[in-house]
Parts: sequence; structure tokens; C-alpha cells
Amino acid sequence: MKPEDLKAVSTFVKQCLDGRHAELDAFDDKPSDVYDKFRETGLANWWLPQELGGRGLSLEDSVEIVNEIAYGDAGVAFTLFISVLGTSMVQLYGSEELKARYLKPMADQGSFCATLGSEQAAGSELGKIETVVRTEGDELVVTGEKFFSTNTDFADFLVVIARSAEDPEAYHAVLIPRDTPGVEVVRRWDVIGLRASYTYQVSLKECRVPAVNRLEGSGLRLLEIGLNASRILIATTALGVARRVRDHCMTYAKTKPLRDGVLVESPVFAQRLGQMEMQIDVMKSHLLRAARDYDTIMSAPDAAARWHRQGTLKSALTAKMFCGQAGWDVASTGSEMFGGLGYTDELPIGKLLRDIRYVSLVEGGDDVLRDLLFGRYVIPVPRRT
Amino acid sequence: MKPEDLKAVSTFVKQCLDGRHAELDAFDDKPSDVYDKFRETGLANWWLPQELGGRGLSLEDSVEIVNEIAYGDAGVAFTLFISVLGTSMVQLYGSEELKARYLKPMADQGSFCATLGSEQAAGSELGKIETVVRTEGDELVVTGEKFFSTNTDFADFLVVIARSAEDPEAYHAVLIPRDTPGVEVVRRWDVIGLRASYTYQVSLKECRVPAVNRLEGSGLRLLEIGLNASRILIATTALGVARRVRDHCMTYAKTKPLRDGVLVESPVFAQRLGQMEMQIDVMKSHLLRAARDYDTIMSAPDAAARWHRQGTLKSALTAKMFCGQAGWDVASTGSEMFGGLGYTDELPIGKLLRDIRYVSLVEGGDDVLRDLLFGRYVIPVPRRT
Amino acid sequence: MKPEDLKAVSTFVKQCLDGRHAELDAFDDKPSDVYDKFRETGLANWWLPQELGGRGLSLEDSVEIVNEIAYGDAGVAFTLFISVLGTSMVQLYGSEELKARYLKPMADQGSFCATLGSEQAAGSELGKIETVVRTEGDELVVTGEKFFSTNTDFADFLVVIARSAEDPEAYHAVLIPRDTPGVEVVRRWDVIGLRASYTYQVSLKECRVPAVNRLEGSGLRLLEIGLNASRILIATTALGVARRVRDHCMTYAKTKPLRDGVLVESPVFAQRLGQMEMQIDVMKSHLLRAARDYDTIMSAPDAAARWHRQGTLKSALTAKMFCGQAGWDVASTGSEMFGGLGYTDELPIGKLLRDIRYVSLVEGGDDVLRDLLFGRYVIPVPRRT
Amino acid sequence: MKPEDLKAVSTFVKQCLDGRHAELDAFDDKPSDVYDKFRETGLANWWLPQELGGRGLSLEDSVEIVNEIAYGDAGVAFTLFISVLGTSMVQLYGSEELKARYLKPMADQGSFCATLGSEQAAGSELGKIETVVRTEGDELVVTGEKFFSTNTDFADFLVVIARSAEDPEAYHAVLIPRDTPGVEVVRRWDVIGLRASYTYQVSLKECRVPAVNRLEGSGLRLLEIGLNASRILIATTALGVARRVRDHCMTYAKTKPLRDGVLVESPVFAQRLGQMEMQIDVMKSHLLRAARDYDTIMSAPDAAARWHRQGTLKSALTAKMFCGQAGWDVASTGSEMFGGLGYTDELPIGKLLRDIRYVSLVEGGDDVLRDLLFGRYVIPVPRRT
Repeated sequence: MKPEDLKAVSTFVKQCLDGRHAELDAFDDKPSDVYDKFRETGLANWWLPQELGGRGLSLEDSVEIVNEIAYGDAGVAFTLFISVLGTSMVQLYGSEELKARYLKPMADQGSFCATLGSEQAAGSELGKIETVVRTEGDELVVTGEKFFSTNTDFADFLVVIARSAEDPEAYHAVLIPRDTPGVEVVRRWDVIGLRASYTYQVSLKECRVPAVNRLEGSGLRLLEIGLNASRILIATTALGVARRVRDHCMTYAKTKPLRDGVLVESPVFAQRLGQMEMQIDVMKSHLLRAARDYDTIMSAPDAAARWHRQGTLKSALTAKMFCGQAGWDVASTGSEMFGGLGYTDELPIGKLLRDIRYVSLVEGGDDVLRDLLFGRYVIPVPRRT
Repeated sequence: MKPEDLKAVSTFVKQCLDGRHAELDAFDDKPSDVYDKFRETGLANWWLPQELGGRGLSLEDSVEIVNEIAYGDAGVAFTLFISVLGTSMVQLYGSEELKARYLKPMADQGSFCATLGSEQAAGSELGKIETVVRTEGDELVVTGEKFFSTNTDFADFLVVIARSAEDPEAYHAVLIPRDTPGVEVVRRWDVIGLRASYTYQVSLKECRVPAVNRLEGSGLRLLEIGLNASRILIATTALGVARRVRDHCMTYAKTKPLRDGVLVESPVFAQRLGQMEMQIDVMKSHLLRAARDYDTIMSAPDAAARWHRQGTLKSALTAKMFCGQAGWDVASTGSEMFGGLGYTDELPIGKLLRDIRYVSLVEGGDDVLRDLLFGRYVIPVPRRT
Repeated sequence: MKPEDLKAVSTFVKQCLDGRHAELDAFDDKPSDVYDKFRETGLANWWLPQELGGRGLSLEDSVEIVNEIAYGDAGVAFTLFISVLGTSMVQLYGSEELKARYLKPMADQGSFCATLGSEQAAGSELGKIETVVRTEGDELVVTGEKFFSTNTDFADFLVVIARSAEDPEAYHAVLIPRDTPGVEVVRRWDVIGLRASYTYQVSLKECRVPAVNRLEGSGLRLLEIGLNASRILIATTALGVARRVRDHCMTYAKTKPLRDGVLVESPVFAQRLGQMEMQIDVMKSHLLRAARDYDTIMSAPDAAARWHRQGTLKSALTAKMFCGQAGWDVASTGSEMFGGLGYTDELPIGKLLRDIRYVSLVEGGDDVLRDLLFGRYVIPVPRRT
Repeated sequence: MKPEDLKAVSTFVKQCLDGRHAELDAFDDKPSDVYDKFRETGLANWWLPQELGGRGLSLEDSVEIVNEIAYGDAGVAFTLFISVLGTSMVQLYGSEELKARYLKPMADQGSFCATLGSEQAAGSELGKIETVVRTEGDELVVTGEKFFSTNTDFADFLVVIARSAEDPEAYHAVLIPRDTPGVEVVRRWDVIGLRASYTYQVSLKECRVPAVNRLEGSGLRLLEIGLNASRILIATTALGVARRVRDHCMTYAKTKPLRDGVLVESPVFAQRLGQMEMQIDVMKSHLLRAARDYDTIMSAPDAAARWHRQGTLKSALTAKMFCGQAGWDVASTGSEMFGGLGYTDELPIGKLLRDIRYVSLVEGGDDVLRDLLFGRYVIPVPRRT
């Protein structure tokens, strides 16, 4: 990544996000103009490979970018990066034709895609997915109800995980253009934070696509693989928000009178902020390490095969767990620094606390991730750290 | 307290608060009809002494009542009990005439009073109060800006802490009827939780009252004394909310599918809920102990003098600290139990998390309370527990 | 309890325990002379009922006494109170003859008894007990291996939990005099803390006692009932040690130079100690509440029947969990207050940390207690706090 | 580092440390034979530069090595790496002659050096150092009392921080050979853990050395610079111990019966271990990042000047803080996994808990480090993470 790129992101944050926290928290009806503004930086979908017309930035670069955007607003960051979940599946396991038809436009236009995995009764247990895909000649027909999916309404296409009608043990990942008849957005979820993002309940009724729209391999495995990038970037939003909390505390403390001076001179305040800074520094180290682990596999010539063997990346799990926990701790501590004022909408701390909460809730809560980590990386002795 | 009383409170909670969390969170313009409904139970301002026409219930009873109401809605509970801060000062340090004129109507009509202590530059450091009271003949004239005060707009009267114009080292507590010329509500604070409560910024301009409206003793000491009851009851709302979180988790877990059964059968869930129940049980023990400490002094014939010597009650400090911390922990854990759904407005957990946050923020943050506790109850060896 | 009694305990602590932490940590071969010294106070086995010649002190009194002794040394406290586990079973479920023969001498001489419940493969799962008791005419014959039991070597008698040879679903509690042939102490356990206490592995080979030595009722239920008192008192040792940690910090801080003054003037130190004091205050409230819950049942005319219905007391579980956790937190924080010196044997903090650790480990770890709490007191709605 | 090197370390751990925890905890009189055995690997003082005959391994390599040794025994690890504190000062700020005379033999013989910074009244406040160095012609004469210093008794030389007799504002770092008249070991500290290490109180009486033995630059700054490597490696011992705790839990859980199976199958156990593994993984990421930060400066041609500007490395502070805290958490959790057995000397967990405690206590407690972190890396906006 060139320094100008990160600079462009910072400028975007300053111009489009700073000081607009009330507005970004207002749960607007449609993607706000900030997404158009981000497109102007030329960095929309920055991770798409150069051969498809994208910027080809690494996940390590992505951590820097998302860190910066989330400092401005975590919901905006989430909207801007979450397409990576779907595009990485298509990039790794889609045909060349599929990539040309669907990823190239996303690189050109900075548009969005969505991934539809979980269902009401299949949250952490994806094996319970009931959406079904059946084969009819050269076509696939998908029917089911998907509970949570982000960006769907304004996405170019959806990657849908569905059970095979022909083999109930098999799951497929199928690319369905947004305008396919039968795709219906049931509602947008009203969320407690991250309100500049857009998550929907979606109904799929006899959605018909060419057979070539099926990605290669098991749908569940592909989803697992796709979640690596998104989990690392979700964790990164915790870093951005935590940094914002810290800076917000520092700004406040510089003028808040305390005894004969100001709060920033208080040794107790120094302790709280010192602890926060430590947590922030460790979050960043670990996120960059996780991103490098990801990039190492992704840049291998046999990336698709290696990911297939790897499935869930260890450091993606630990990054989301750690940043979710440390971030919540930073925000909780932060929310106690402003006295009664911190309980009002005068200060953004309430929003930051609500925003950061999602990190430990989406794409697997900590109980689910700990279980996965234990089974995959503690039980097998050589995979322990 | 007669069992019927607590029963009446439960009925009120079931009929007026249950299932209305969205509405109670809506930040309505004026005290909602729930306050009228509570008045019908005959328990409004239940702590006012019988000789003034009140119910004369103890603080131990109050803990039971507030626990019950806060289970329904912490903001409603706060609105209903916070008058105790002002009435206890008037009851202990007001003249008989003042009590007859101002407390009796509150007992009869279930109306409200407000206390105006803190200012923008005098939050935890009340010695910095700049509101001034001067004596003009038989009258007192009060002028200043008060930052946070609850219920003021619809209160019968305000108890205002002000610096003496005659002696800058002295502070007075002055009772000012709400309709006194010069009392102006500047704004209602938009708050991140507890949105069924009403907290205001208030301006006082040359508010003129009879000299007899001054309560006996130092205004700062009186405020300290008044805060004992309110801190214990604020802490109690954490208990009510924590119980609600637990029950909410249990209800959800009974039908939430998990593997071949439901969540409530999961050993990991049992661990989380067992830990919560322990915290709840300890919170309740300690609140009742603090309330008994309070009642012991309050029921003594020389209560006013004893409170004067006592000032801040140790267990009132520790109750607010502990319940704020344990309650936040319960709510944080609870908020991770519902997966993505817990991040939506479908479930009340987001509101419960926002509501309980206030416990550690108002009437002294933990840093301030720890400092006070250390200075008053650790440094002097015999006062250690 | 008369004030002189608590005074006598304090004097004992000052004269026999203070300043002897190295010695009390030395893992002496046999009960040190401190136990003789305690006997001289006339308070040994203070809880034994007056009709059996005991002092008849309540569990609420016991909390005060154990708090005081544990402040001096937790291991000494444990040795002095743990007999209550066995005596309470005999007192409630033994025949009058058995009580006269075995409890009366304990009251007279201040001697000890032991309880042998757990086994190597039956720690938290007592249903796996393999020690067997069979009936031969008027006699019972007990054989088995008991893993952990305190005071056994110098006890008057043992209360042994064993499976019935006649009915493998049934468990009995059998009183076996220490000098019964077949009772063999295999070894004293070398422990990481609480080294003034004496815990043994014991082998029972064909130990023969009269049939009347069997206590009335299920052995497992009786053990559960007996554990109520001991769990509350174990939790109380955490209070005593935590108070010691706090006082130790305060003493050190009074003379430890820091900048231009001493450590006790540091605002950061005040925060740490304020938090500790809060935890200590809450521990004490809850312990006294649990003890009162116990005393309420114990002083009922139908105590044996009520305990039989009650089994494990809720507050006994929550007291041990809370005090174990809060105590560990206090000691952990405390151990960071002395710099490098706190890592040496110059200061007692290392011993205090090792001592307090046992609270969360013996008589059910927290995982076991949380499980029990959940099953007994969260699942059944009316039993929730 | 060649793979054989790390392999040699593993072999050393297996052959010399495994299964000897009682012995290594016995506080032996003199460096045990394990240090001779380590020398045989050819890796003693592995970080010394190749131009001085050393192995020239980086700090990143050192993290791997220390991680491995501390898995075996943290005290042995500490003894083996702590010389780096002194050697790095000499390497950066000593004359070529000094390096040849003192570092070369350490590389050849795998011997030790010691650093004498803190004093009884100058622990975290090194400005209070009272040891004095005065100039007499071509010689320096050093006199003072040093409180804690590791390896001194058997070191080749000591690096002593002393105040200048000529300029009380100036501090020097002076290299004093161990056999210099006037160097007296007052006592070896009896420590609560890390008992295979050797820390001494030392008296210096008119110790006379050539003027060239003074290192270039301010003694306090040099000490600060030296502490970077040692703090990172101290933090690394927390990683080694935490991994040992985890593996110890896993080994135990594989055969420990639980219900119808074994502990390792328990979902609650999986949660605990999953959380531990996450902490361990994050510790490792951050340690390697800190080590790379160190190596980047150390391998620069102008390393001495760059270190002079840098002083305390941010990631060295955050690594010690984080690993001390996370390690303590892992060990505390671990110590609750073995029931009563975990409280005995049958299992090493008690020792592991005592060992890991030192990480947060030596070379600056967390309060001191948070303060430093705040002042150096939070107050200056561009230095924030």
C-alpha cells in the first residue's frame, strides 16, 4: 500500500465521518452518501486482486485501512469491508467466468456483495441450515430463509450457503445476483449499535441461477474460509473504536478541571490510560500477525488448496476473541471517565460502547470460537501455540 | 411493609412495565402515565414518615420495592425513588413548618421533589459550587447554574446547594418551590439509558424564598447525608436489572435449540448463569445490610445529630460500587448470550445494558467513591471492616 | 457471644499467631502448641450445643471468630473449625447415645473429629464413592480408601461416607473412632498453603463399629448438609486473609518512600485500597447473611427435618464462590504492591496468596458449585434470588 | 537461528528440567548443574555478537529460546538470559577494549554478568540512587548498597549504576569485575518462586576500577536501554509458563474421570482451555513484535545513538504488562482445574503459579510501567498506537 492510500483514508475519515456521530447513529434508510465519498478515494473494495481490476491490497494493508475508518465510525467500516467475506469465496473457488462477471464490476464501481450463511435455527450450528438448492438441468434453484445478512439490499450479488436437495449431507455456496426473481428483503434489522451498517433478513423463493454459479467445494468449508478475512477485520474495528475511546478520554481530560489542575494530570487517570494503551498496542500487534498469516496463504500459488486444508485460521479466531474482549474492556473503562456527562448524548462514548459490542457477537460468539479453538488447535498437540 | 404492598408493586410492574421496553426507552416528553398508575398503589413516596401522612416504610423495604420496579424498568424506578434524596434532607434538617408545608403534600399526592447539587465545574468536587445564596432581610436569594438534576421540571420543590454570599467557606441547602420566579429548566438531557427518567439542566436567577427555607447545617454535609439513601437505591436498580438479565437469558435458553436439545441444558450456559446468580445473591445481601445500617441511624431518636457525625455511610459507598461493578459484569455477560439477535432491538438486552451503566456513573463514579472510602474508612484503623 | 469471647480470640491471635508466619508455614509434623493455647480460651469447638457441654455459639458468631483467627493464620483457623463438618452431622442425625459418647468429650477437651467423604475417583462426584459399608449382625464393617481428610490423624473419631454393600444405590455416614483397628493414615499431604493444617490420605480396612454408629439418613445428603457450615467458614477465612492483606499493605505504605512523601499518600494506592475495602465489606455482609440463613434452620425445633429438605444452602454456595473469587482478587492485587520485596520471604504476602488459594479449591471448586447453584437455585424459578 | 539450535534447547529442557520441578524449586545453594549442561549446547549467552565470539542471535530468536526454557523452568530461563541486561549496555556503550576484555570471555565460557541498579530506597525511582562513584586520577571508586541483583555472586563482572560524586545530577554506569576488593554479597534473597534463580543483596565498599570502565552516557538512560531486552524476555517466561500450565491441564484432563467420560471431553473445560490458548497466542504475537522492534534498532549501524534517543521501547513495556497480566490469569485459572490435588505438591501447578508471579513484580511493577507508558507514549499524540 502506498502511503497516499492510507492518507486518502484518513482524509475521508476527517471529512466524512468526524463530528457526525449522531447522524451516523441515526439508522438512515439507505446507504448514506459517505459510501459514495469513499468510492471517490478509489479504494472501494481495496482487497480485490489487480488482475480483476482491483487494488490488490493485502489483509495487512486492510487492517491499517479498517483501523482508520473504524476510528471514524465502525458501522461505516463494516459496510465497506464485509463484502470481502463473499468476494474471497468467489475469488478462490469461483470459475474465471464468474470472477470476470461479478468481481470485476465490484472493482470498477465499488459496489457491494452479501453473504447469506446463518438462519434463525442455524446460527452457530451451520449444519442445521435448511435453505435448499436443487439442480434442474443446467440450473440451480435456491429456496430458504436467511436471518442475518449484511449489505444484501444494495448488493450486486449474494453468496448463499444452502443444503443440497440431492445429498442432504452436502452444502453448496451459490452466487445469486441481487435482481434474481425470488430474492426478497424481509426487513432491515434495527440494531443497538453499528447503525451506519445495514443488516437484513432475507427470503429466497425459487431463485434460479445457472449451474456454473455454484462455487467449487463444500459450502460450509468455503464459508469457514471466507470468515477468516472478515473476522480479522471485525476484530480490527475494535482497535479503531478503542483508539477513539482513548483519544476521546485524552481530549476530555485536557480541559476537565480537577482539583487545582486538569484531569490529564491525575495519576489515577494516567493508570487507566496506560492500561488502555497497552491493550491497544497488543491488539494491533496481534491483528497484524493474523493478517500476515492470512496473506501468507492467500499469496501462495495454491491458495485455494491450502485454504481448503486450513479452514479456520487460528489467529483469525484469537484475534476476534481478544480484540472483542480487550475492546469491550477499554470501552467499559472509557465510559466511566466522563462522570454523568458520559451518560448523555453530548459525548460519543455511549455510541462507541454500543458499536464495539458487536465484535464479540457476530460471526461466532466467544463461546463458539473457544470451542472451535479448543477442538482444532488445543486437542491436536502440534497445533498448539 | 405488609406483603400486600410488595404484591401491589409486582402487579404494577406486570401491568404497566412488562413488555413495554421500547416505549419506556422512547424518551417521552413528560412523565408517562406509569407514574399516575404507580400513585394508584398508594405507595408513591413510600418512605415519607407516617407523622407526615406517609407510609413510613424503611430503607430495607425500599430495597425490596426498588428491586421489584427496576426489574420492570430502571428509569421508572429512578424517577420514583430519587425524591428521597431531597426529602430526607428536609425531613432531618427542615423546620416542622417546612415539613408540613412541603413533605405532607408529597405524601398526599405522590408528587416529586428535586435536588440540585452538582454543577458543570463541580461534579465530584462539590466544594467548587458557584451557585450563590445571599441574605436580604428575611429572604434568601439564590442564583446559579445547575448541571444535572432529576425530576426538576415537574417537582413540587427543589433543594438547592449553594455557597453563602456572606461566607464563601459556607454552603447552604435551600428549599425553593418549583414555581418560584427565576427557576428555569434549560434543557432535558438526552441520555443513553434510563430513558424513562427525566434529568435537567437548570438555571436559577435571583430565586427568592423566605429565610426559613434554609435547612439547618452545612449544605455539603446535608447533601452527603441525603446521598446515602439514594446511593443504596441506585445500587438496588442494578440488582433489579441484573435479575431481569438473568431471567431473560433463562427464558431465551429454554427454547433456543442447541445441538440435539436446547441451550438451557448446556453445561457452559449453566456456568454463566450460576456465576450470575451468585453475583445477584451477593448484591442482595449487601444491599439489605446497607439498608439496615441506614435504618438503624434513621430510626434513632437523635437521627439528625447522628447523621451529622456520620456523613457518608460506609455501606452506601460499597453497595453502589459493588452493585455497579457486579451489575455491569452480569449485563455484559448477558449481552453475549443471544448471538446476533442480542445486537438487535428484538430483545431488550441492549436496553438493559444501557440502563445499568448509570449505576457506576451518577452520584459519584467509582474513582471518587474509592477515594472517599479510602480516606474515611481505610485510613482510620478502627473504621476498617 | 459475649464480647469477652471475641476478645479472647483476638488475644490468642496476637499472642500465638502474630509474627509467626514463617513457623506456621513450616509444615510441622504434628499439631503445634497453638492448638493447646486455643483450648485455654475455653472456646475450642465453640459451636457445640450447650446441652452437650459446649458453648453453643451460632454460625454468625463463628464467622466473627474464624474471621479473627484467619487474620492470624488461615491454616490454624481451618484446623480449629473444620470439625464442625462432622459434628453437625452427628448432632443432627446421630442418636442421643452417640452424641453423649462422642460430642460431649469434644466439648470438654477441645479435641477434633474428621470427615471422610471424597475419594481419588470421587472428588466432585460423590456418587462414585467406592468405600463400602456392610452389615454383619449388630455391626458395620467399613473398607475403602479416602483421599483427602483433615485432622484425621489426631481426631477422636471419623465420620465416613460409604456405599452400602446391601444396596449400591444407598450411602451411609458411619462414625468410626480413630483407634478402631483398620484405620490407617497413609500420608499427610504436602500442601502449597494452609500449612498449619493437617490433611491426610486414609485407608480403612475392615473397620468394625456397632450398627448404632450409623447416622440416620442418606450419607450423601448428610454430607451435603454438613458442608453448609464448613463452606461458610472456609469462605470466612478468605475474609480474614483479605483483611490481613489490606492491613499489610497499609502498614507497608505508611513508611515506604514515594517521591517526596510516602506510598500511603498516592492517589493510585488509595484506589487499590478503596477497591479492596469494598470487596472486604461485601464479603463480610454476605458471610453474615449466609450464617444467619444457617442459624435460622439450625435453631428450628425441627432442624434435622428442615435440613433434610434443604440440603445445600444457597447462600453457603454463593458465599464460598464469592469470597474465594474476591479474596483471590484482593490477594493478587496485594501481591503487586510491594515491588520486588513482595517476591521474597521477607514479607508474608507470598504466604497469604498461597493460603487464600484453597478457598476456591476445597469442598467443591467453583465449576462444581456453579453447576449445583444452577440446578438447584436457578432452574426452579421460585428459588431464584 | 538454525533449527538445530532450538532443537538443542528442547533437548536440554527435556533432559535437564522435565520432571525435576521439586528439585528446581528447592532453593539450592549454588547454580545447579543445569547451567553447566546448558553451556554444553553452545548456546550460553546466545545473544552476544559474532564479532565478540558469540552466536549473535536476535531478540526474536531469544524469545523462541526463552519460551522453550521457561516451559521447563522459569528460574533457569531467568538465570540464563538476565545477563543480557548488562551485556547490552556494555556492547552499546563500552569501549572496544572493554568489550574484548569482558564480553568475549562470556561468549567463550558461557559465564554470567550482573546489573546493579535498584537500591532499598530507590526501587521504581532510580533518581534516588545513593551509591556514589568518585573519580580519583585514572580510577573510579564506587561505594554503596544495592538491594536486588541477579547472578552477582557468580558473575564475571557487575554493571553498577551510581551517582557521580562530582555532579549529583549525573549518574554513571561502571563495570566492576566481581573479584574487585570491596564487592561483598550480603545475602541471597529467599524468594517465593523462581527458586532456581539467584538474586542477591550486595554491598560495594570503595571498589576501585580504571576510569575506562565507565560506559559512555548517562547511567540512568543506559539502564533504561538495557531493560528493553530483559523486560521482553521476562515477559517471555510468562509465555513459557502459561504454555506449561495449559499442557499440564490437558495431560491431567485426558485421564481424569468425569461423569461417564474424562475431563477433556467437558464443554466447560473446553471453554477454559480455549480462552487460555487465545491468551497464549496473543502473548506470542506480541512478544515477537516487541522483539522485532528491538532487533530493528539493534541492527542499525547507529544503534547506540538510536537507543539513546529511544530509551524505553514502547512494546517492551506493553509486552511485560500484557504477558504478566495474561500469564497470571492463565495460571490462576489453571490452578482451579485440579480440585484439591492442585493444592498439593503432587502437581507442579503451585510452583507454576509462584513462578509466574514475578513477571509483574520485577523491573517495574505494572503501576510504574503504566505511568511510564502514559507519559512517554500517550501524552505525545504521534507516539500513540
